Parts: sequence; structure tokens; C-alpha cells
Amino acid sequence: MKKSILEVPKNSKVAYQGEPGAFSQQAAGKVFGAGRISIPCHSPEDVFTAVMRKRAEFGVIPIENTLAGSIYQNFDLLARFPLAVVAETSLRIEHNLIVHRGVGFPQIHQVYSHPAALEQCSRFLSRFKSLEQVSFYNTAGSVKHMHDQGLKHAAAIASADAARIYGMKILRRGIEDDPENYTRFLVLARKGRLPQGGEKTSIVFGLENQPGVLFKALSVFALRNIDLVKIESRPIRGKPWEYLFYMDLLSDIRSRECSHALRHLRELAPYLKILGSYPVII
Amino acid sequence: MKKSILEVPKNSKVAYQGEPGAFSQQAAGKVFGAGRISIPCHSPEDVFTAVMRKRAEFGVIPIENTLAGSIYQNFDLLARFPLAVVAETSLRIEHNLIVHRGVGFPQIHQVYSHPAALEQCSRFLSRFKSLEQVSFYNTAGSVKHMHDQGLKHAAAIASADAARIYGMKILRRGIEDDPENYTRFLVLARKGRLPQGGEKTSIVFGLENQPGVLFKALSVFALRNIDLVKIESRPIRGKPWEYLFYMDLLSDIRSRECSHALRHLRELAPYLKILGSYPVII
Repeated sequence: MKKSILEVPKNSKVAYQGEPGAFSQQAAGKVFGAGRISIPCHSPEDVFTAVMRKRAEFGVIPIENTLAGSIYQNFDLLARFPLAVVAETSLRIEHNLIVHRGVGFPQIHQVYSHPAALEQCSRFLSRFKSLEQVSFYNTAGSVKHMHDQGLKHAAAIASADAARIYGMKILRRGIEDDPENYTRFLVLARKGRLPQGGEKTSIVFGLENQPGVLFKALSVFALRNIDLVKIESRPIRGKPWEYLFYMDLLSDIRSRECSHALRHLRELAPYLKILGSYPVII
Repeated sequence: MKKSILEVPKNSKVAYQGEPGAFSQQAAGKVFGAGRISIPCHSPEDVFTAVMRKRAEFGVIPIENTLAGSIYQNFDLLARFPLAVVAETSLRIEHNLIVHRGVGFPQIHQVYSHPAALEQCSRFLSRFKSLEQVSFYNTAGSVKHMHDQGLKHAAAIASADAARIYGMKILRRGIEDDPENYTRFLVLARKGRLPQGGEKTSIVFGLENQPGVLFKALSVFALRNIDLVKIESRPIRGKPWEYLFYMDLLSDIRSRECSHALRHLRELAPYLKILGSYPVII
């Protein structure tokens, strides 16, 4: 069931968050190969919107990193937008401290990057307490910004690709806290765009506020030997201390046990949305 | 079991994250009343260290917000440090856009605040796309920074208290995305510093990577009618796609059902740490 590429029409338009050199663009390359048209987007929300409004056939978003954890805002967007997850992939992430040519440590006062990248390099950055950390919407975008604005007192954290694309210097390579640094990405499409089905199924649901109700929700999968590989909870706005639960199941929605389990879950969950059932691109 | 104040010796030293005017300092005031000595700390980690090294008897950290979700870094610190949770409280959070006197919207190019506060105001901020968002270690600290550096092109997001303390102007009041904006705070102490016990018990545990194991872990509580009010998962560094689970139980550790459930959980969980059993300060 594991695939090495997602088969789609040549020259499909793929929206990704960030600027050229972004990790999401690299993930898009892994999923779709060379025959695609990349569409950079400013925010994750813009990726969802680009697919919704048919400016792109597919979107690629990061969803989880092994050091920084889930990218929670993207979970929230999955619940909000009526799109389907059609594939997942993961990348080994190497972060680099990138500066203008001729710039060294003493000149740097600020470091720009995406908050998740700053978090993945927190141990390295904690050695430079005077460095102001500036959140930027994208890792590669922070290199572009530094380049375009001629910022010589700043550094950016991004991929080696991004340094190359903008002609900048890598001051320190591999500054992530741990080499086991992987990010998982999801590929999005409008519903019905690809046949659904694959080794993984992702859902999001809300439960009544009753004792033991999460246990009952998990039981619908355990009773059918369906393996749960990820659970995430997010607050519901306007309902303090109530949550939506996101789950990834190792099960194909076309299987009998998966469809029975989801029908059983509907009995318990006033809100249930199937995000997608999809292959893993390795 | 709900208490209106935590009874501790007068003039107890209480470490909190941030500068005077920080929400954590307000939470400390709610828990300990006026007879305390506040010790500002730069980072959440510094709060843990201050309590560990006996520079303070207690520490106060934010753990969860109803709009932005869990403050994940603080969950990680709870697992790392051998401290006990001895109380919890919550505060209604109102955010304000704060500037120097005489400054209006056209002059502002940057907005400084803690990432969680920026996230809680994301809808407001999305109306000003040209505003650069700068992550700062603390909300009140961002006001102090703007004040000390005389930054007239910047705004900060923080409490009305912080604006008052540093003599700054509130340009826009109540800019959080939703009025149901509450933050939950935990009070930390060295183990044995206060008798443990109270309406809530918090634990963190790791499980073997086996199908259905999270279901079994939840069953130890469901079988004993113990209500689970919060579950959170965080990645384990160095073990890609494995997680630690954090849970809050509505149960007193001194009760028979709670001690039986935790003994049962130990059979399943190679790693289990009891973070504390404590009263809720209302």
C-alpha cells in the first residue's frame, strides 16, 4: 500500500506554504515528482483557500514534527475547511543558520524563522540569549526577507536549498536540537478529486462532556483491532475546556472494520468529520 | 474541596514567568493573596529552576488557554523537573494593543508579545498583514522592552496592568479573538513541601508501541468511574512518532479508586510520573 509517488495529471498545480526552498515545497517534490507547478502561499490558510478556490489542485501542509510536536494551527484548519487529505509523506529536516556573505556571529542581533523552526533549534538558540527571535511565516521566506531587505545584523533558520536559492551563506549547519528531526506533511485536495482510500484514515470529532466518553470513543477502534497511531486534542473556541479530538488510524476506510467503527463512533460523537483515507508516500 | 486561597507561610517567595504586570503574576496574586514576595523569571524554565534551587518556595506557570490551546513547552518541563503541582487556578485574559503615548496605527510596523498572546489575537492581527509579529518571552516584558528602548514604531500585546505599570497607552482594548479567553495556571513546589491531595490529579506516562495500548491505559480510569478532563500528547525526543501522554483526572490521589487505578496503569506504562494531586483555587 505504501507508494513512492502520487499519480496525478502532469502539470498539476500544487500550493505550498512559504517561498521557494521551503520544506513544504520539498515535500511536494517528493509526492508529485518534477512534473508539477508549485504555487507559493503566504500562510497555511492561504494553501487551504488556494485549493478551495481552484487556484490549485493540491495543497501541501506540515502537520507534525518529531521535536516541536504538532502544528496545531493546521489541525484547526483541517476541521474548518471542507477539503480531503489524499496522501501523507515525511521529510528529514536539517536546519541551518543563514546569513549574508561576510557576516559572522558578532554582527547578528536577530534571528528570523518560522516559530516551529525556532522551537526545533531551541537548545542552540539558548546559548545566545541576546539574540532576538523574530517569528516569520516561513523558514525560506525569512531568508528571502533578509536577502531582499539587506539585513546584515540578522540571521535566518532554513534549509540549505533556501540559502542556495537566495545566494546566502550558511554560518552553522544542522543546528536542530536532535538529528531525529522529521516533519510529516499532508496533501490536500477538494473532495472527490481523487478516490479515497489508503492505509491511513484521519478523523476529527467532538464528544459530549460526560465521564468516560473518550474511553468509549477509543473502544470503537480497540474492539475492532484498529490501531490508533496519533491522538491530538484542540480547544473549541467559545466553549472553555471542551476539545475536538483528532485521530490517525492505521485502517482503510473501504474496509468493513473501519466503516463499522466509524458508524459506531457516530453514535457517541455529536460531531464527526472524516478528513481522509489515504496512502503514505515513502 | 475548592478553595479561595492556598494557605502558605506569610512572605513566601513565588516565582513567575515574566515582568511585573504579567498574567502569571496576577494568577500568583489570586492563589497566594497579598502576603507574598514575587520573583520575576525570564523563562518558564527559570521558574522551575528557581523553585528547584530554593530561590523560591513556589512557582506559577500557565499551562493552557481556551483559544490557543495547551502551552506545550510547559508540559515538557513538567515531565523533566522533579517538582510537584500543588494547586491550579484560572484567569480571564483580556489583551490590549499597547503603544507609547502619542502613537497611532499608522506609525506601527511591529507588534511584540508572547507567541500565545499573538495566537489569541490572530483574527485581529490578520487585518494588519504588514505588521511584523515579534515573539517575546512575556506579554508584560514586551511592554517593558518597548518602554525601555523607546520603540515608537512598535506595539505590544499585554494586560491593562502592564500598560499602567510602564505608563503606556492602550490603543485598542480587548483584542483577543473571543471573549471566552481563559488561561489555566499551575502552582509548583518542591516535593513534600505541601501535603499532596485535592480534587485533581495530574500524571504523565509513556506506553509501549502496541495496538490498543492507549485504550487500555484509559480503561484503568473508566473501569473505576474516574473522570478524565484533559489529555495531551507530546513527542518524545529521539523516538520519532512516539509520545508521552499527560492526563488530568478528577480524583484525589488519597482515594482508593485513584490509587488502584494508578497501580493498574503502572502494569501498562513503562514510564509513569505523578505530577501532583491538588486543589483548584477559584
